[in-house]
Amino acid sequence: MTSPLASPLKILDLNAFDMRSTAGLDPATATLVERRRRTFGPTSMLFYKRPLNVVRAEGVWLYEAGGTRVLDAYNNVPSIGHCHPAVVAAVSRQIGILNIHTRYLYDGVYTYAERLLATMPAELSNIVFTCTGSESADFAMRAARGLTGGTGFIVTANAYHGNTLAVTEVSPSSASAEPRPPNVAVIPAPDTYRWGLDGLAATFADNVRTAIAELQSRGIKLAGFMADSIFSSDGVYPGTHGFLNDAVQAVRAAGGLYIADEVQPGFGRTGDTMWGFERHGLVPDIVIMGKPMGNGFPMGGVAMKPHLLADFGARAGYFNTFGGNPVASAAGLAVLDTLQSEGLQQNARDTGEYLRDGIASCAKGNDGIGDVRGAGLYLGVECVIDKTGKMPDARLADQIVNGMRERGVLIGTAGINGNILKVRPPLAFRREHADIFLDAFHATLRSSL
Amino acid sequence: MTSPLASPLKILDLNAFDMRSTAGLDPATATLVERRRRTFGPTSMLFYKRPLNVVRAEGVWLYEAGGTRVLDAYNNVPSIGHCHPAVVAAVSRQIGILNIHTRYLYDGVYTYAERLLATMPAELSNIVFTCTGSESADFAMRAARGLTGGTGFIVTANAYHGNTLAVTEVSPSSASAEPRPPNVAVIPAPDTYRWGLDGLAATFADNVRTAIAELQSRGIKLAGFMADSIFSSDGVYPGTHGFLNDAVQAVRAAGGLYIADEVQPGFGRTGDTMWGFERHGLVPDIVIMGKPMGNGFPMGGVAMKPHLLADFGARAGYFNTFGGNPVASAAGLAVLDTLQSEGLQQNARDTGEYLRDGIASCAKGNDGIGDVRGAGLYLGVECVIDKTGKMPDARLADQIVNGMRERGVLIGTAGINGNILKVRPPLAFRREHADIFLDAFHATLRSSL
Repeated sequence: MTSPLASPLKILDLNAFDMRSTAGLDPATATLVERRRRTFGPTSMLFYKRPLNVVRAEGVWLYEAGGTRVLDAYNNVPSIGHCHPAVVAAVSRQIGILNIHTRYLYDGVYTYAERLLATMPAELSNIVFTCTGSESADFAMRAARGLTGGTGFIVTANAYHGNTLAVTEVSPSSASAEPRPPNVAVIPAPDTYRWGLDGLAATFADNVRTAIAELQSRGIKLAGFMADSIFSSDGVYPGTHGFLNDAVQAVRAAGGLYIADEVQPGFGRTGDTMWGFERHGLVPDIVIMGKPMGNGFPMGGVAMKPHLLADFGARAGYFNTFGGNPVASAAGLAVLDTLQSEGLQQNARDTGEYLRDGIASCAKGNDGIGDVRGAGLYLGVECVIDKTGKMPDARLADQIVNGMRERGVLIGTAGINGNILKVRPPLAFRREHADIFLDAFHATLRSSL
Repeated sequence: MTSPLASPLKILDLNAFDMRSTAGLDPATATLVERRRRTFGPTSMLFYKRPLNVVRAEGVWLYEAGGTRVLDAYNNVPSIGHCHPAVVAAVSRQIGILNIHTRYLYDGVYTYAERLLATMPAELSNIVFTCTGSESADFAMRAARGLTGGTGFIVTANAYHGNTLAVTEVSPSSASAEPRPPNVAVIPAPDTYRWGLDGLAATFADNVRTAIAELQSRGIKLAGFMADSIFSSDGVYPGTHGFLNDAVQAVRAAGGLYIADEVQPGFGRTGDTMWGFERHGLVPDIVIMGKPMGNGFPMGGVAMKPHLLADFGARAGYFNTFGGNPVASAAGLAVLDTLQSEGLQQNARDTGEYLRDGIASCAKGNDGIGDVRGAGLYLGVECVIDKTGKMPDARLADQIVNGMRERGVLIGTAGINGNILKVRPPLAFRREHADIFLDAFHATLRSSL
């Protein structure tokens, strides 16, 4: 349904600063670029044609060295807001008291584990702590392979699940020269803009069944279906509530596990529910968590059905030195508390809807904006050559992203063709910020077309 | 040269608390064990027959809930000392100012990168930041595969390099039911206790050459030789300065890379040098860093020769969301500053020697302690049935570890047979702490035999 127009490396380049030249940058920024090139190497990518030199951040604002403030409508790591005082206080306090691995007992770590698991369906009552979403996805793959005896994984065409060797193989969006191994089957993302909503569940499930058959024909047993319920890297496709159900049934009938990657949709972002999979009324076998979990403190986790973890644990070990340490647990608990006390899930739903409506209304009559979709504070805005042909327009997306950056608002792109604007602000993004966003968007659209 | 007497799971059990029963524990500890079992699952291992319920830590001391203090002679994560004020201040300050990924520019991150790279040979002038040693080892494997076109790895018989799917395959010490894949060749650790020091370099290099031939016979091209220069999990074998040289030459002659895992020996622990590989006068192609880097803040890194990173980066991408963020960089810089200002590398050398001599003198005339070896503050003490036969005695090691714990001193075990005491305190461990250790060791030895 989508056709790759360019390699991932090429697409990334569109929204990237060209590291080969510092021409046109102010001297301080040019010096930082030079120091980065010397230490990180020449291929380390910076966002935006004019990269950001950031010195501090607060709430939904980043401050550049010159004093300019920039509205953050891109970052989901500082999910409850940059430098949120609750997390700052929790980390600063705990790091002075105790910070060590989990081979000893600590009250605070179990309190966090209990509080986190209480937000999930009762069947998911065990947790394995890690340090990143990548480690979580990697452990989920190890567990699924061990538990099913299979090695096959099904993922969507431009999925991103992380950066380890194993997870890169199930992350087709990763810029990688390595060939895709035969145990990975790729299905189209649920492209509701081109497919429509009718028959979405059936089409998606048919594709999953085809993938299972494809793996079988190669002699590969299915281990799992790994999906982010909002299909972030594919281009932000929330689809309809429950459409994943038939596909997951097909996966389970083939002996595979349903692994929900909640790194992006989790922790209230999609507005209606705390977890993305809940929008489908599903209970996954394994849930992957990462980015927003500690508001920037490096932490991740894997929630599992207890019989699965016990089965795996009886045959193999897993220990993560920094995972679930007392400081991570303090940060995580502050995030859960703040989500509740500041009503951030409700804000994601309400402000998300307001922002989506505002973008749609800006784009009305504009033939380059084909679709505005999303759930909560996670929106995808599809740039096309024209609405009739629906051909992806990555250059327009790039113009808008950099035009917004010049107007002091940060967004990014997604999708296999790099033509979909990704709008994914911290959940502390309120209506007043949406208004600032919409002014910039309106001005950018007018000057880009 | 060593023969596996038991599976890794069995050996771990020896030094582990039995999660099935809380009998004999005080009520508060029993409750924590129960909460842990409910959230982490029944197979999550706790150290010691009587697990620790820790509420705070400072320097080389852990404090249990009842108020007892325990001397830490085991943990290398809080390398400059538990809750060191320099790291506490740096993290608390930076987390309130800015904490975001490296797609933007920040002065502090490059300052840290420059300072860290300045401690290495000039050839290693590029850095990739990660969040854990496991992520570092995983990236090193991805890079080595991409750069050499090979998939073969050589590691020692009981090596541990991390917990991802790929790294578990090159970590024979991991408790795992998965069979070892054909691209991994295992060589004996440099068991100087049984081999002696004469001909160490030649024997070790011969084993590496045999492993290369073995991989070739399976049609597998060598990607790399991955080794921790003190062979921690194998049983702490510092060997003689330079003995790795011949082996590394053989690896390079076969087109492979030398990947130095510095998670354990790095950051001054071995006393003579900042980095373990420096003891051999070698410059690795890739250096893996983890645990002690941020004194407990989750961070890791991979130092590389710049042409290798550029080659890899031209064909594949790598991005780590939390890796090298401003807070991690602040923690890392505080660690480097403190290593210097408190003379911790020199202390590792001096106190390490004092402690090694003290242990050797305690063990004199004791037929169960076959060897006391180490470099800096990293010692291995080998428990044997008797000195003539040199047969590993895991039960004695377990008795000593738990006997020391009952006397308020924490140590662990290592080695394929679980019979080697691992003594690896924070580098803030001084002569006065060594004296406390030696009193407990003396008393434990007397009661264990």
